[in-house]
This record gives sequence, C-alpha cells and structure tokens, in this order.
Amino acid sequence: MSTSRQHPRILGVDPGSQITGWGLIEIEGSEPRWLDHGVIRLHQKASLPERLSLLFDGMTSLLSKTEPDEVAVEELYVARNARSALILGHARGVIMLACARHGLIPEEYPANTVKQAVLGQGGASATKERVAFMVRAILGLDEIPQPADITDALACAICHAHKRDLPT
Amino acid sequence: MSTSRQHPRILGVDPGSQITGWGLIEIEGSEPRWLDHGVIRLHQKASLPERLSLLFDGMTSLLSKTEPDEVAVEELYVARNARSALILGHARGVIMLACARHGLIPEEYPANTVKQAVLGQGGASATKERVAFMVRAILGLDEIPQPADITDALACAICHAHKRDLPT
Repeated sequence: MSTSRQHPRILGVDPGSQITGWGLIEIEGSEPRWLDHGVIRLHQKASLPERLSLLFDGMTSLLSKTEPDEVAVEELYVARNARSALILGHARGVIMLACARHGLIPEEYPANTVKQAVLGQGGASATKERVAFMVRAILGLDEIPQPADITDALACAICHAHKRDLPT
Repeated sequence: MSTSRQHPRILGVDPGSQITGWGLIEIEGSEPRWLDHGVIRLHQKASLPERLSLLFDGMTSLLSKTEPDEVAVEELYVARNARSALILGHARGVIMLACARHGLIPEEYPANTVKQAVLGQGGASATKERVAFMVRAILGLDEIPQPADITDALACAICHAHKRDLPT
C-alpha cells in the first residue's frame, strides 16, 4: 500500500449480496479522475457461506489489483425489511473484513451525503438515474457504466474525494 | 477436519457484534455430551472493520482448536430494527466466512426450532432463562454457563444433534 502517492487512489464500493459494484478514481489537484470500474458477481445458486467466501476472494484480489490508498463505502442503507438488511450486512461485513486485512479502514458515507456530493442536493428527488448521469459528467465518461451498482460505487468515491480535504 | 469420527462433534454458535457465544458437544449414541464452551469478546472501542477482523481471527482459531465436524448457527434473528439487523449481519457474515474457509457449511436453525429442541415447545413462553435451565439439565452441567450467548449456542448445537439424524 502506498500512502504517499502523488495522486491518491480511492476505491468506492457498493456492497450487495449478489452484485458488488466498485469504481476506482484518482485525485489530481482537487479533481477526481476515472481509472477503472467493475462488479463482483456472485452465483445465486451457491450457499450463503460459499457466496461470502467468493466475495472475500473477489474483494481481496480487487484490492491487490487496484492498490487503493483509501476506500469509501456507502453507509448502511436501512432496507425496507430487516431480513434483507441482515443479508446485505453479511456481504458488507465480509467486504469490510477484506479491507481491514489489507490494512485499509473504509470511510462510510450516508446515502444522502453521497447524493449531495454529486448532485448538490440529496433526498427523494435524487434518483439513481440522476446520480448516474452526474457521475458520467463529473468523470467525463463516454457512457453511463452499467449496472447502477457501478455508478453508486463511483459516486461514493467522488464523495470521499470531496470530503477528505475538508477540515473535520 | 475429521468427518468419520465415532462421536461427531458439533459446534453451536450464537453470533453477536460484541459477544459471540459458542458451545461444543459430541454425540454419543443419540445423546449430546458437553465438551466445552466460551465466548469471543470484541473491544467495543475498535472500529467495525477491526472488530470484524478480530472476530474472523477468533472464529478461525476456535475452529482449529475445537475441530468440529459440523457447525450450527441460529438463523437470522430479525431484530427490532433494521439497523441492528444490519450490524448483526456483518458479524454473522464473517463467522460464516470463517466456517466456509475451514471447509464447513453451517446449518441454520430458526430460533423457534432451537427452543422446541430443548424445551419441547417454542414461542413467546420460551424465555432465555428456561432455555438456559434446560440446556444445563440436558448436558448435566453443574451450573448454567454465563453469559446467555453461551446457552443459546449450546441450545443450537443440541438442536442440530436432534435434527441431523431425522430423515429430511
């Protein structure tokens, strides 16, 4: 892990029990610049422990490959029902574990903070589509990356790029 | 891992983000016999990723030390609020991951099934105290182990001992 890179690399992660989106940016001056993105996809047919094991492997090799200086994860999205929150928590726990084993403690941002960072406003009017549109514009991408898990992950990385320079 | 042990060893686990209880039994004939129990306790002051990392280490060394043939975990307890379910999910995900890495896929039992297995009845009348009392009686222990996370874990192991011999 490099902690003194000239252009710090930020990995944004959007955890999911089936699809985990990720986006890698670097900061040049105060501008975020796109580097890479992708998803970790898990076989739905595998048992939960097997899926978690694949997710841990996927996350560990992603960290080795992308060598981020910092990691940003959207804060606990309190799902409509407690059961889906619990399953999502399993995946999120394994992702945080993989980061900790790699020497990185992820920063967590509430969903509204992430939306505000890319849109200048949060709340109900900030649809996933608007977030995706602004992520494309901010990073100067030719197309909106699919699926939405990727734009959510990139939005989280952009949010961290903004917040990390602010006095706390 | 021995899968052909004469008296199969069952590890019951009660996951928690602060205290994880565990209980080890073996099956002699059709009778569960107590072997050991304990807790994995996590520093509350550590960050969540650090706590999850400690939990993973604790669970991994527990599996190496106790060498269970099978693992039983209480099924997702749908907590009063989604946020605590999410945090509990993080811990549970890491525990399941540690088992999977050790070649063991935990069996999951709903809380009511666990209670029925030790009390002969489930539901609201089955308090934690009654479960603890019956666990002590079934395993012939001198005292009720404390904290309750341990008796819950032992109850889960006893439940698995009953269920594993039944035709599915």
